[in-house]
Amino acid sequence: MNLLLLDEPDFVSADRVLLRGRRLQHMREIHQANPGDSLRVGLIGGLMGSGRILSLTAQQAELEVSLDQPPPPKLPLTLLLAMPRPKMFRRILQHCATLGVAQIVLLNSYRVEKSFWQTPFLQPDSIRENLLLGLEQARDTVLPELHIEKRFKPFVEDRLPELLGDSLGLVAHPGDYPPCPRAVDGAVTLAIGPEGGWIAYEVDKLIEAGLQPVQLGERILRVETAVTALLARLG
Amino acid sequence: MNLLLLDEPDFVSADRVLLRGRRLQHMREIHQANPGDSLRVGLIGGLMGSGRILSLTAQQAELEVSLDQPPPPKLPLTLLLAMPRPKMFRRILQHCATLGVAQIVLLNSYRVEKSFWQTPFLQPDSIRENLLLGLEQARDTVLPELHIEKRFKPFVEDRLPELLGDSLGLVAHPGDYPPCPRAVDGAVTLAIGPEGGWIAYEVDKLIEAGLQPVQLGERILRVETAVTALLARLG
Repeated sequence: MNLLLLDEPDFVSADRVLLRGRRLQHMREIHQANPGDSLRVGLIGGLMGSGRILSLTAQQAELEVSLDQPPPPKLPLTLLLAMPRPKMFRRILQHCATLGVAQIVLLNSYRVEKSFWQTPFLQPDSIRENLLLGLEQARDTVLPELHIEKRFKPFVEDRLPELLGDSLGLVAHPGDYPPCPRAVDGAVTLAIGPEGGWIAYEVDKLIEAGLQPVQLGERILRVETAVTALLARLG
Repeated sequence: MNLLLLDEPDFVSADRVLLRGRRLQHMREIHQANPGDSLRVGLIGGLMGSGRILSLTAQQAELEVSLDQPPPPKLPLTLLLAMPRPKMFRRILQHCATLGVAQIVLLNSYRVEKSFWQTPFLQPDSIRENLLLGLEQARDTVLPELHIEKRFKPFVEDRLPELLGDSLGLVAHPGDYPPCPRAVDGAVTLAIGPEGGWIAYEVDKLIEAGLQPVQLGERILRVETAVTALLARLG
């Protein structure tokens, strides 16, 4: 936790917060913080700054906070991600929040196992928790937007062209395609398939919607690795 | 497993292998392979090609193999990595093998917890197993070389300059440094610190040895994410 994230209900007055639970435990056990210490803090969706510990017990901590710095800018990037295997999904949420993805659309695909959609990691509380872990790591306060699209065809035909707008649309797919561009200025919409890849029909539909197919070399990457590698290359 | 890796002891004649254990189980359960099917195969450290299943039982599989394609080239990259937390170490080994790192040097650092060096994941069999998992994912046959350097100062003073040779030496560290270069032609030696980063003394010693400090933006990445992001940016 490189940033202690605060939420509106933590505030007991304009510049005072009371913390319990996971954040209190982390301050005591990992930071080994004491009264008088200052920590980097940020308000979820708002500014960052510092928090001075006024008191700290096994039950709660009281901090005086001063918020005056903007969070780092987001990547102007929308990630269309075929719903990954649950354990990997959790880590990808964290990676995306850490790397600054602005928007995530979870998409169905032929090779997404139906059971993946049943995972408790798709519960709003769990999604939020994992995105917050990623923000705490990166020192950011702004949650990526996340949308769930369980029907591939209606989404790609009816909503993707509008979502794409003026952004550069890319679909990552192994094959005889141009290499993924580097250091792109401006907004990008990037589609990454499931383990085993998109099927040909899906690639065709994504191209019809305005995305350009690109590849990342002959090595086959796990989805988790591909997400980070593509974002690093584009960013 | 996108490539079935074979080892010399698997061969019962010049073009026949017998497989048991994990690979047999994977063929049966994941590939749901049957006699007559062909699979991509590769000889560890050697060529890749295809293997036709001659017979397949619960006990063993016999394949006729034909090896005629070279593995993909390695990245001309030596990674100097401060020894990570064991669970992350395992995944980083897999990522490095998948991404094509040629050589890994595990290095001590002030912020590496002593207990990390006690992990069973540092046993040669475990290192090999995780590197093989990464190669199977990427479709590569050549294991990265791995060296362990538990003493920072003697390594950096006495051996690093020679290891560096004519390669571009970089040390990733947050701070007021130039951004990490992109798409570097030629060999690179890249040093990545532990969670919490190198200490100033270590950065100074690495710079003395010929490495240039570079940064990857204001977001703080987990080591695992930083490894993939830096390799993708350099590669």
